Amino acid sequence: MIGWGDVYKVVAATVPLYFALFLGYGSVRWWRIFTREQCDAVNRLVAFFALPFFTFEFTLHTDPFEVNYRAIAADVISKAVIVTVIGVWARFMSKGGCAMSWSITSFSLSTLTNSLVVGVPMARAMYGEWAQQLVVQISVFQAIIWLTLLLFVLEVRKAAIGMYVDTVNQSPPVKDVEASAAAMVSDKESVASPVSGDKPSLWALIKVVAHKLARNPNTYASFVGITWACAANRLHISLPSAFEGSVLIMSKSGTGMAMFSMGLFMAQQEKIIACGPSFAALGLLLKFALGPAAMAIGSIAVGLRGDVLRVAIIQAALPQSITSFIFAKEYGLHADVLSTAVIFGMLVSLPLLVGFYIVLELIR
Amino acid sequence: MIGWGDVYKVVAATVPLYFALFLGYGSVRWWRIFTREQCDAVNRLVAFFALPFFTFEFTLHTDPFEVNYRAIAADVISKAVIVTVIGVWARFMSKGGCAMSWSITSFSLSTLTNSLVVGVPMARAMYGEWAQQLVVQISVFQAIIWLTLLLFVLEVRKAAIGMYVDTVNQSPPVKDVEASAAAMVSDKESVASPVSGDKPSLWALIKVVAHKLARNPNTYASFVGITWACAANRLHISLPSAFEGSVLIMSKSGTGMAMFSMGLFMAQQEKIIACGPSFAALGLLLKFALGPAAMAIGSIAVGLRGDVLRVAIIQAALPQSITSFIFAKEYGLHADVLSTAVIFGMLVSLPLLVGFYIVLELIR
Repeated sequence: MIGWGDVYKVVAATVPLYFALFLGYGSVRWWRIFTREQCDAVNRLVAFFALPFFTFEFTLHTDPFEVNYRAIAADVISKAVIVTVIGVWARFMSKGGCAMSWSITSFSLSTLTNSLVVGVPMARAMYGEWAQQLVVQISVFQAIIWLTLLLFVLEVRKAAIGMYVDTVNQSPPVKDVEASAAAMVSDKESVASPVSGDKPSLWALIKVVAHKLARNPNTYASFVGITWACAANRLHISLPSAFEGSVLIMSKSGTGMAMFSMGLFMAQQEKIIACGPSFAALGLLLKFALGPAAMAIGSIAVGLRGDVLRVAIIQAALPQSITSFIFAKEYGLHADVLSTAVIFGMLVSLPLLVGFYIVLELIR
Repeated sequence: MIGWGDVYKVVAATVPLYFALFLGYGSVRWWRIFTREQCDAVNRLVAFFALPFFTFEFTLHTDPFEVNYRAIAADVISKAVIVTVIGVWARFMSKGGCAMSWSITSFSLSTLTNSLVVGVPMARAMYGEWAQQLVVQISVFQAIIWLTLLLFVLEVRKAAIGMYVDTVNQSPPVKDVEASAAAMVSDKESVASPVSGDKPSLWALIKVVAHKLARNPNTYASFVGITWACAANRLHISLPSAFEGSVLIMSKSGTGMAMFSMGLFMAQQEKIIACGPSFAALGLLLKFALGPAAMAIGSIAVGLRGDVLRVAIIQAALPQSITSFIFAKEYGLHADVLSTAVIFGMLVSLPLLVGFYIVLELIR
């Protein structure tokens, strides 16, 4: 049974996250410490330094030969379940671009979580050290596989829109409205697509995605970290303490600065629910119902049980990944829905996850 | 005897500080991640959040009933020695404002150190946990007493200049050059002095200093921290873990962010030695010779010996306090000299302090 002591431990581990969020929010809304331009600077500090080192530090210390491959398999199955559900649902939607766009967003909403910043302290408070390790493993997997996949699909979509615009431009102007709407869409996609005009080849898309990943410091952090972790565990070597300390001095700021900058982000929004209540409800449903349900299916399918099953389900119900919002913004795809999911998800996640924790303990 | 292992430990504890400094420097000079305006934002983040929480966290955990009062007494004596030396030297200088200005700057250079950020990891690597405690105690004392005193003296000087300008304005314009020079000085002091026009009373000055302190988040951090530490140690209470965690989530970023923002600061300077080599040499002499020598006198006078004496001397030779530079900038008093002392002092401090460490160990 879970006692008040256990619940308090989880709350105590989460309150600091909200505190940092609150400071970030307050520093813009109430104390006017930062202007809008200055918020960007803090975001850059977090995106280029605090978070990459934070990811790097965790990845460095994973043991790739001690990974819970069952849990990873469960994760893969859960994603397959979600893709199937979304695929079936998309067939009932109208044809073409809209269904594709909403499929991407739904996938993002139901699968991508803020696992390191929020998940690690929560899992540790609930189940201890091993649970933290599990969350880190799933998180590294997300960073390397699922976020790359999302980037790839977003590039495919962009190329498809480019082609569509191209077709429209070549055909005689039958419907001016449609053409200008398409042009607007292509205008919104501010990054020039290198494949527009040609039929996009798979290779060209892979090159674009690789180029984007190569400019993302978090990618380096994950890849270099996991490479080192493999080598270190094989060769039984450890990092010199000066190097370790250098990573730590930056990574220690990760959690605080990430939450602080999320607070800045919240403060800059006009409304907490930017996309309207129905989309917000959809986002919550995908995140806190479809995601964990799919993970439960995947976990049971591969035979996870007991506390490992519980951790797997809970980590699937963590708040929305901030990276998924950044991608959405960059590609002009439902950024308002993702922003709502990040913010609102963060606010409701503490009570919801404590609820999951209690309920999952009751089902024995 | 000190072996290579001991020296390596100290170097390994200091390298991370330089790494964070390097990232800050590189992000402006080489990678162009931050514009000048954005550097200000990072500085604000550090000044309003990272450093105050960092100070708060240390102060919270000092035990005011376990303070090494001898070391504090040695600190006070060392300051008295320095004031005497500067006083004697000032008598040989030309009369008036210049001698006063240089006395203030010399005091600042020879006494105020960056003890928490640089001193704590260094002292711990050299002599262990108790040495860290000692450095924290001296640092809290510096924050509460010496920095307040410096602020007070700077306000007195400003009031004196204000009076001088006033006198000049009231007297017939004999020397136009002098009057306009004085006006320029008063112009540089952008903050309007509330006492200009009147003869400044002590009470008015105290009010100005109190007002300035009340707007400084580090003051709150020190005062609230030390108050709590007294209460907690008397009443044997400890902070709830959610509160402790909330302070930690921000304070953990303190060292990294402080060094990072110093790197930004260095990158924004035209030259590393902004004030010319002779003033730079004077600064180094005051910081790394007069300061530690005075501390040695004070320490021996109160009977400190052994490792406590060594820690006392080494902490007096830490790089220049960043706060002292901020004050210098705000009051337009030799900001270039202080900036050089901060930057150049940081760069030479690692070899110099390791040298102190080795030499002090040889003198037994």
